[in-house]
Amino acid sequence: MLYRARAGGVRLTIETPEAVRWAGNAIEYLDQRSLPHETIVRRAVSAEQLEDAIRTLAVRGAPCIGVFGAYGVALLRSQIADDAKFQAAVARVRGARPTAVNLRWAVERVLNSKDMLAEAQAIHAEQREVDRRIAEAAAELIERDATIYTHCHTGSLATAGGGTALGTILFAARAGKRPHVFVGETRPLLQGARLTYYELSQAGVDATLVVDSAAAISMQRKEIDLVIVGADRIARNGDTANKVGTYGLAILAAHHRIPFYVAAPRSTFDFDLATGRDIPIEERSADEVAGFGETRSALPGANAYNPAFDVTPNHLITAFVTEYGILRPPYGESIPDLQMRPNMSALLSSR
Amino acid sequence: MLYRARAGGVRLTIETPEAVRWAGNAIEYLDQRSLPHETIVRRAVSAEQLEDAIRTLAVRGAPCIGVFGAYGVALLRSQIADDAKFQAAVARVRGARPTAVNLRWAVERVLNSKDMLAEAQAIHAEQREVDRRIAEAAAELIERDATIYTHCHTGSLATAGGGTALGTILFAARAGKRPHVFVGETRPLLQGARLTYYELSQAGVDATLVVDSAAAISMQRKEIDLVIVGADRIARNGDTANKVGTYGLAILAAHHRIPFYVAAPRSTFDFDLATGRDIPIEERSADEVAGFGETRSALPGANAYNPAFDVTPNHLITAFVTEYGILRPPYGESIPDLQMRPNMSALLSSR
Repeated sequence: MLYRARAGGVRLTIETPEAVRWAGNAIEYLDQRSLPHETIVRRAVSAEQLEDAIRTLAVRGAPCIGVFGAYGVALLRSQIADDAKFQAAVARVRGARPTAVNLRWAVERVLNSKDMLAEAQAIHAEQREVDRRIAEAAAELIERDATIYTHCHTGSLATAGGGTALGTILFAARAGKRPHVFVGETRPLLQGARLTYYELSQAGVDATLVVDSAAAISMQRKEIDLVIVGADRIARNGDTANKVGTYGLAILAAHHRIPFYVAAPRSTFDFDLATGRDIPIEERSADEVAGFGETRSALPGANAYNPAFDVTPNHLITAFVTEYGILRPPYGESIPDLQMRPNMSALLSSR
Repeated sequence: MLYRARAGGVRLTIETPEAVRWAGNAIEYLDQRSLPHETIVRRAVSAEQLEDAIRTLAVRGAPCIGVFGAYGVALLRSQIADDAKFQAAVARVRGARPTAVNLRWAVERVLNSKDMLAEAQAIHAEQREVDRRIAEAAAELIERDATIYTHCHTGSLATAGGGTALGTILFAARAGKRPHVFVGETRPLLQGARLTYYELSQAGVDATLVVDSAAAISMQRKEIDLVIVGADRIARNGDTANKVGTYGLAILAAHHRIPFYVAAPRSTFDFDLATGRDIPIEERSADEVAGFGETRSALPGANAYNPAFDVTPNHLITAFVTEYGILRPPYGESIPDLQMRPNMSALLSSR
């Protein structure tokens, strides 16, 4: 642990550290589990520590995990000369979060490069540029004084860039549009309450926290103009895996005739995957459902179903917001169009 | 505090005390806030303590609040000779929970009776009989090996009888039907995790706890056969106020073509209320949303929207289960039919 600040009852006046940072002989990362109460920066120096950071959600958010994994592979290469041992170490990192496609993608890209550190740094720089372009593309969807519902956390901590869904809201706020944001707390790990509400407050954006099951009455009574969420993996037909609860929100939005947008970079699209049926759903520990932190709600040993993600079928999604603009149905045409675009790496290196 | 037992890591072997009990110079009640970890029976001896018990949700569940309020009025009458002071004390109790129609109904009934204690005891006995009949009526809806989703808590602790929605499940289990129950934890106060899961486990019924936002994926992947919930207040057209999240569940059930049932006694129907639009929605403290028991999720002072209830429109409700049988649409006919039925008091006294 490098760095620690207590927020307690007062507003943090220190600047929030970066989500992920290359530190030569280690990867430094902000431990997102202890936010908003404590700001703790940790160091990962081995495959085991890299894997643990991802698995325990200290590092989270699909794009951020990708950047972290990319630096991780570069770090492991600098440490491990033996190829078989290096491959085994990389496999640990790559397998730490099965649903997040960015991790696999970033790890492969670094593995296939000549200068692994330079490639990881390029992925990080591209992520920042991608997020900026997503936020710009979303501008036409977010009107002045819009009331927006969001779920989980998709801000700068989640992407190691400017954020995807939350990035579009922060961008609108900086443009003077005064959005008001309803934030679903996002049980079981409360990323909405802990991270999104915190990031919005830090940015001075008007926000209201709700329990996830208040989404329906909020849509009915609070004049929500749009829902915007991120994604962990998007199939070729537009079916979208994201934090559990997203699928329900999409059904509720359709019922209330509220547009439902998914903001995600091209790297979150898995063009090899025909539909969402084939996306594996990670199931996490029953303990997460039976309590939060030190507080237990059910007796020990309670039986729980704890899928980390769900899959929203394409027909419930009004549009995708990507760094190449807005994709609308029919996704059978717009997603293959996206696939044909050069990746950000090619775009940036051709400038 | 009369009675206290710690559950800790082991199963409670003591018998659960009754939710509410007349104790001559006090009303004894089980403090539902500390379950399942501790079993604490408290005594209320004044209007202030009666009001606090209801307001803080130590006593909860609309029918249980009704029984508690009925005994409370009898207790206050035995203590306060002055009529104006008595009326002021009763007003405190009656106003402790604005959405629960049973409380107002039970208080009025006791006030208008000759022997207030006998009337409160009759209300309690009728409640037990009503719950038994609701469970019997639901039998035709619950098949052997049914998978059932429920929300909040509607068991014996909620009604001071056998329970409404949860009572139908427990009745089916006792009849050997082996139901499997998905229990939504019911944020912010976690009545599902703390009370429903506990009551099902105590009864040996197979149960799975989920976060509320996993309802949609559960309906999609877990072959849920039906949803059954209770109600706090039902308008003449069938619009139903119940714990926040119920409205969303009804939309999700309709989307997945799963029947959505509301189990509630005739006393929960407010025949004077034309539609759900006129039901006041109690908003509770932001603190409940910004934390989880003692554990805080958001920074202190977070802004939150915390409606205790929502209103499910009649067209999303497949049927009501009452002590007079199953009511199906058109509710414009079946609910006025229910209104014409004698109340349980008349039925029982005519036997």
